Amino acid sequence: MLNRENAVVLSSGGMDSALTAAIAGRKYELNLLHINYGQKTQERELKAFRDISEYFKAKKTLVVNISHLKQIGGSSLTDNKISITKADLKNKKIPSSYVPFRNANILSIAVSWAEVLGARKIFIGAVEEDSSGYPDCRKEFFEAYNKMISKGTRPGSGIKVLTPIIGLSKKEIVIKSFELKAPVHLTWSCYKNSRAACGECDSCGLRLRGFQLAGISDPIKYIKIPNYI
Amino acid sequence: MLNRENAVVLSSGGMDSALTAAIAGRKYELNLLHINYGQKTQERELKAFRDISEYFKAKKTLVVNISHLKQIGGSSLTDNKISITKADLKNKKIPSSYVPFRNANILSIAVSWAEVLGARKIFIGAVEEDSSGYPDCRKEFFEAYNKMISKGTRPGSGIKVLTPIIGLSKKEIVIKSFELKAPVHLTWSCYKNSRAACGECDSCGLRLRGFQLAGISDPIKYIKIPNYI
Repeated sequence: MLNRENAVVLSSGGMDSALTAAIAGRKYELNLLHINYGQKTQERELKAFRDISEYFKAKKTLVVNISHLKQIGGSSLTDNKISITKADLKNKKIPSSYVPFRNANILSIAVSWAEVLGARKIFIGAVEEDSSGYPDCRKEFFEAYNKMISKGTRPGSGIKVLTPIIGLSKKEIVIKSFELKAPVHLTWSCYKNSRAACGECDSCGLRLRGFQLAGISDPIKYIKIPNYI
Repeated sequence: MLNRENAVVLSSGGMDSALTAAIAGRKYELNLLHINYGQKTQERELKAFRDISEYFKAKKTLVVNISHLKQIGGSSLTDNKISITKADLKNKKIPSSYVPFRNANILSIAVSWAEVLGARKIFIGAVEEDSSGYPDCRKEFFEAYNKMISKGTRPGSGIKVLTPIIGLSKKEIVIKSFELKAPVHLTWSCYKNSRAACGECDSCGLRLRGFQLAGISDPIKYIKIPNYI
């Protein structure tokens, strides 16, 4: 078999990025990048990242610790003075969990790594419709990001960010994850706890609603499973 | 006197960013941001940053340590296996000191901080003509970066990166620094040493040529002062 082209895949430990890695892995050699940015469930997410990397037999893995998003603050995910709000899936405002410009920070690390690896594709599991209204999860953000990459890297680097699941709903993500055998059982999404998922934060709410709409039961453990549909 | 609007200024400890802070300080309240990214002269640059922040009576300062550019490697500035090359000011190729996508990484931190501070202007002392051919020092990179910011931050954040000296030559930077009383004597530019500047690396070469063309003597100490004109 010919050597496959390298790709960098951002892997948070969550379900969306696990599906994204499954999609990328059908064509590319996987180099998985995980960012610890001081989020409260950092250790649990790192464990999920390691389990997922092993599942996919990643060629390389890179774990980067950044402290500045926590230093800078402004989000309930990193700032202990701001509490995690309960899921309010009808609220269209930007929630307290928004980390200012997080995806731009994370992607810039991925681009630096891709440039050194000689990889031309960076996969990120951003989801627009279901993404709690974070501005840096939208298609137009990634389009603008790609234009910026083409101006800011060596001529001919050809590096591009791909968002293969950006248009999917959580229900579709659940269904596709099982179709492509993404390791859903190894993933972690909860913003609040680290032993069993709380079932009540924004992230648990979105995830559980997806499973409930798909009529599939979520293989991970929850403290509480409210009905979201 | 009315409260002045906040601005974030990237301050490396070098001459270009010191002039940029002097320009920004005429209109804005200064919040100075310094990034340690594992460069070999990190400690010396941090001292210069502190001296410069004090000189300007900065409202806030933020020092962020990022390890990933060093972890990722690929540059003589951060990778001990790659040696610092001597200045070759006629060479138009990207030099070994190029840190892949450094400015995008640094700016993303500045944007996150600006969003939390409520600052709308970010100043960076990038210089296009004199910048050793780094792709992320060019005007078109910053234009693309600004479009990306407008898509990736809260609606109405109005955050914009400004590059007031991008079109200047090093000679003009030297002259303008003395005109605006920028603290040239507190700055540090050398890539190689940390007691006295080497006089021979790319960065010393560009700086010394600027002073020589301006007919002004550089107030900092050098080990060697070759003639660059």
